[in-house]
Amino acid sequence: MSDKVAARSKFLSVFSDLVQELQDVLKGYGIAADAIAWFTRNLEYNTPGGKLNRGISVVDTYVILKGYKSFNELSVEEYKKVAILGWCIELLQAYFLVADDMMDASITRRGQPCWYRVEGVKDIAINDAFMLEGAIYILLKKYFRNDAYYVDLMDLFHEVTFQTECGQLLDLITAPEDHVDLDKFSLEKHSFIVIFKTAYYSFYLPVALAMFMAGITDAKDLKQAEDVLIPLGEYFQIQDDYLDCFGKPEDIGKIGTDIQDNKCSWVVNTALKLATPEQRASLDENYGRKDSAKEATVKAMFNEMGIDKIYHDYEEQVVGQLKEKIAKIDETRGFKGEVLTAFLNKVYKRTK
Amino acid sequence: MSDKVAARSKFLSVFSDLVQELQDVLKGYGIAADAIAWFTRNLEYNTPGGKLNRGISVVDTYVILKGYKSFNELSVEEYKKVAILGWCIELLQAYFLVADDMMDASITRRGQPCWYRVEGVKDIAINDAFMLEGAIYILLKKYFRNDAYYVDLMDLFHEVTFQTECGQLLDLITAPEDHVDLDKFSLEKHSFIVIFKTAYYSFYLPVALAMFMAGITDAKDLKQAEDVLIPLGEYFQIQDDYLDCFGKPEDIGKIGTDIQDNKCSWVVNTALKLATPEQRASLDENYGRKDSAKEATVKAMFNEMGIDKIYHDYEEQVVGQLKEKIAKIDETRGFKGEVLTAFLNKVYKRTK
Repeated sequence: MSDKVAARSKFLSVFSDLVQELQDVLKGYGIAADAIAWFTRNLEYNTPGGKLNRGISVVDTYVILKGYKSFNELSVEEYKKVAILGWCIELLQAYFLVADDMMDASITRRGQPCWYRVEGVKDIAINDAFMLEGAIYILLKKYFRNDAYYVDLMDLFHEVTFQTECGQLLDLITAPEDHVDLDKFSLEKHSFIVIFKTAYYSFYLPVALAMFMAGITDAKDLKQAEDVLIPLGEYFQIQDDYLDCFGKPEDIGKIGTDIQDNKCSWVVNTALKLATPEQRASLDENYGRKDSAKEATVKAMFNEMGIDKIYHDYEEQVVGQLKEKIAKIDETRGFKGEVLTAFLNKVYKRTK
Repeated sequence: MSDKVAARSKFLSVFSDLVQELQDVLKGYGIAADAIAWFTRNLEYNTPGGKLNRGISVVDTYVILKGYKSFNELSVEEYKKVAILGWCIELLQAYFLVADDMMDASITRRGQPCWYRVEGVKDIAINDAFMLEGAIYILLKKYFRNDAYYVDLMDLFHEVTFQTECGQLLDLITAPEDHVDLDKFSLEKHSFIVIFKTAYYSFYLPVALAMFMAGITDAKDLKQAEDVLIPLGEYFQIQDDYLDCFGKPEDIGKIGTDIQDNKCSWVVNTALKLATPEQRASLDENYGRKDSAKEATVKAMFNEMGIDKIYHDYEEQVVGQLKEKIAKIDETRGFKGEVLTAFLNKVYKRTK
């Protein structure tokens, strides 16, 4: 078993405990058995099915900060506690995804029907999303109530949750799937959307959580982490947008749909910035339409405009800047640049 | 201007400050102006349009606990702080109602179209509900971060929010509007639903918040409040169910729809408990159907079974028990039975 598989398997083993503990809360309330069964299914259907990168990265970051060689050196209790923080991010993500799928009218998620499309669920999925979020605070209270940083964990989850919702709001009103208006798009809005909708909860949150548990809580250190992780998260999402359009289906494991879906992607925003009046007119006519001929026209124009090269130039530039920042990290209070390098290495030059 | 009108007007005046302060958070994030306008409209459309009983009762309770004669004796800062707690409950309620209206496919709320039915909103209302909840924690942090009970306020909001969601879940799976199965109903489930879905956030939460701010935070005192307010909240909802069926439209200001809507109401649960096999068969055939003749059949049966008298006997019994409990409240640590009497008087014998 590779290290990565072992890490994932150990992380997953905590989830069943956690389901049990959450069921116990409902049992304590005296709720009917069918409601406990429903909540259990909600948790199991929506929480563990993804790559778990965010959750596992809390453990990885904590291991580095504490100077361990591997998660195997953590005591049973310490591992469980840090894994619970990781699962809290996965619950946060589940809460967002259940809702996003309803708002985007998506069909499948992680190879299965979206939760709201499961027989008998429908709009109950809204309340189910709420309960996934609620589970975060039950777990934080159970495991961290007596730690001095408990209040910081709650403040952090509140702020990052709200930031993500702000990113989602701007995305929803800028790029509705059923109404194309490219005047609403801009690289500035794109930057806001990806930083708020993705970077805070996917990049900054795992590291900040691990830092609190490791006792590295100076505001200067949290700022050092944020200053690298937010542009890194932005780069990750720009890369995602790039791959949706230019990646090979056999590499990325899906066929990109951003052009047909009227997505406010980095690719179209870069094209809009450079477009001649003729190119702009063609984009207005062809972008965001459920029509593969129009999609092909847009794709041809993106190629003609050299978006591919612009992306690679951006990538080399941002990676260079990030490496420079990481090299200058002040480690005197215990924070470690290695944490950030580990994240950067997961993103740089990935093809999927 | 009556005292009640003045109290409401002063409470409302805090809301515009609060909207401004929440806008400032979004401005600080650098989000586009159209997103700030959207969030503002979300706040203004969904938060202040109701009776504001829950929010104002935080102020009223605080005034009693501190021994003031009226809210006019509070300093500007003290008033604002306690009113913010009241508005946090109104935001919590707005969060629930925006979502409940979607889940119930409701048409109007407080005399206007439900938010999700407003032009251009639709499923974005889900994210809007999330942001209403998020606003609670922004305000708590801004006004209470330096108070020793800040962590208790967050724990309380988290627990009550989750309890309400548990009540909503049981209600949704017990009484779906489109599938009648009276075998799922019971007075026990009804009791759970109304206590969790309504009593905790509408009755216990306002008093507990005021108690924290007034410094009356002994677990024994919170328990004394809960022991009266939870059965009082249950009684309030039973009364609501009773009035939906037996109240005069000119008194209650609406025409009851619980029978046609397949609601898991106290009235039908009481009838189910007493029904002969023939009456049960008739209920199975006629309850929860969008058919006014069937509704009339059910109503006639409820009258025949003497539900009206059972309700009044229950009311006298529960009010007697509550008065007894209130008379025995231990006031040695500063809690006051008068707080509970004020709530009881608002509920007992109301006709609307």
